[in-house]
Amino acid sequence: MRPLVFALPPSERFADALAGKLDAERGKIELHRFPDGETSLRLLTDCQEREVIVVATLIDPDPKLLPLALLTQTARELGAARVRLVTPYLAYMRQDKRFRPGEAVSNRIFARMLSELADELWTFDAHLHRVASIDDLFDIPAHNLHAAPALSDWIANNIDRPLLVGPDEESQQWVQDVAERAGAPFTVLRKERHGDYDVRITLADPNVDRTRQPVLVDDIISTARTMAETANILQSLGLRAPVAVAVHGLFAGDALHALRKAGVNRIVTSNTVPGPFAEIDVTPMLAEALDAGP
Amino acid sequence: MRPLVFALPPSERFADALAGKLDAERGKIELHRFPDGETSLRLLTDCQEREVIVVATLIDPDPKLLPLALLTQTARELGAARVRLVTPYLAYMRQDKRFRPGEAVSNRIFARMLSELADELWTFDAHLHRVASIDDLFDIPAHNLHAAPALSDWIANNIDRPLLVGPDEESQQWVQDVAERAGAPFTVLRKERHGDYDVRITLADPNVDRTRQPVLVDDIISTARTMAETANILQSLGLRAPVAVAVHGLFAGDALHALRKAGVNRIVTSNTVPGPFAEIDVTPMLAEALDAGP
Repeated sequence: MRPLVFALPPSERFADALAGKLDAERGKIELHRFPDGETSLRLLTDCQEREVIVVATLIDPDPKLLPLALLTQTARELGAARVRLVTPYLAYMRQDKRFRPGEAVSNRIFARMLSELADELWTFDAHLHRVASIDDLFDIPAHNLHAAPALSDWIANNIDRPLLVGPDEESQQWVQDVAERAGAPFTVLRKERHGDYDVRITLADPNVDRTRQPVLVDDIISTARTMAETANILQSLGLRAPVAVAVHGLFAGDALHALRKAGVNRIVTSNTVPGPFAEIDVTPMLAEALDAGP
Repeated sequence: MRPLVFALPPSERFADALAGKLDAERGKIELHRFPDGETSLRLLTDCQEREVIVVATLIDPDPKLLPLALLTQTARELGAARVRLVTPYLAYMRQDKRFRPGEAVSNRIFARMLSELADELWTFDAHLHRVASIDDLFDIPAHNLHAAPALSDWIANNIDRPLLVGPDEESQQWVQDVAERAGAPFTVLRKERHGDYDVRITLADPNVDRTRQPVLVDDIISTARTMAETANILQSLGLRAPVAVAVHGLFAGDALHALRKAGVNRIVTSNTVPGPFAEIDVTPMLAEALDAGP
């Protein structure tokens, strides 16, 4: 039997695309919110002995946890052979340590809750800072795919004479990876502290061709503070208005306003989070990985 | 050491009152919502080897589940001897059956998730229709307290010559219980079907004193459709404008408007859900039960 792909809003289009690539059936659900705030959910496609894939991107995660549980657990109760949870964007990965006494370490708590809901988890470019592998965080097999190749392809196909730029030296390896696949040069910003009130920011590689089109690349655009600051610095260093490319486009708060104010002349993200800038389709990579997966 | 009572919004005042009755310390938390919708939580009071009580009324439940997990799990990680979860109002108890194929049976799924978060659960007047005991639903000891005595006391102390009225014959036992403790007479509405288009509604006890003050009692006011309909019928049967008394005042959607339109002249609920009508304090009953509990 063909696999069955269900989606929680707003991942319907991602699920459509994924089902197409997997030659899977798109499962139908009925989702209703009562006036008292409770959610009701009904699976309209039979799950009996089928492989079920549930797609739920976890922007604004708190209100999604219970509907997600209703969906995955009901699929299990109704006989699904396996439930594979796809969270194209996975939330709560940043709080990976008790920075101050008493703080909740939300990455582990969230991962433990998700682990109860499915047999495996698939995501893209999870923010793993102090966690060596996403598998250490989940009680189920978890797979962290990298959208870099899809970003590289998009840049190679759409930007004339690109120069890839990362916001800081930490981003060097990732930016280099995207740049090499795109066949483009790259640099990152370097901060040098010359005293309490004297921080100089320069291009790590001073010899780059400043007539090229700068392409800022990052894993995530959330409030866009980093991206906007980097765009401003580039222009003060004499480069052109940059294009911004990222895996996850959250655009929290006034992010778009900040990017426009900083002169970013084009914004493109992958479709892990839907929206008007989600031009880069990562479902081909995901379908391949799911097909190859155990 | 004295027990420690934490609260999730909007249960702060309930927790204050409970802590007072238990001679417990009110634990402090810092709760923050990031622009991307993630929650951060910090316990500002030390939990080490202490008995921790977490109060979280579960109106609008979906967005509360993760903050609740952050609170209870962090208390455990930081050495709480025991975590007792108090949900004065417990959501998701109505969907207790797969009414139509494919429906999520949310009462069990929700109860299972809550069972992961604490060592025991305490609530008031959970809506248990097809579930014999709340203990059957949870994997941890669960206690369903009844606010009826507090409602009876309030009615006896505040309403002159009351006549208690239940909305239907199903409510008979509960209404009778509240009435007897209040030392007041009671009746319920009876529907008699005389054909497809002929339903007659009467007072089950035709001999009640119609000059008394009708007091509609119910376990919950959600959208208030039942309560408003009952109020209308009573007045068409020649009774006075009723007072409405309930355990849980959710007032979903336009409930207040519907009650006022139906001529309800006073609304009073317990404080399981906070709000302007939450006059009846159930924390004395709860404190006694927690003290007596295992």
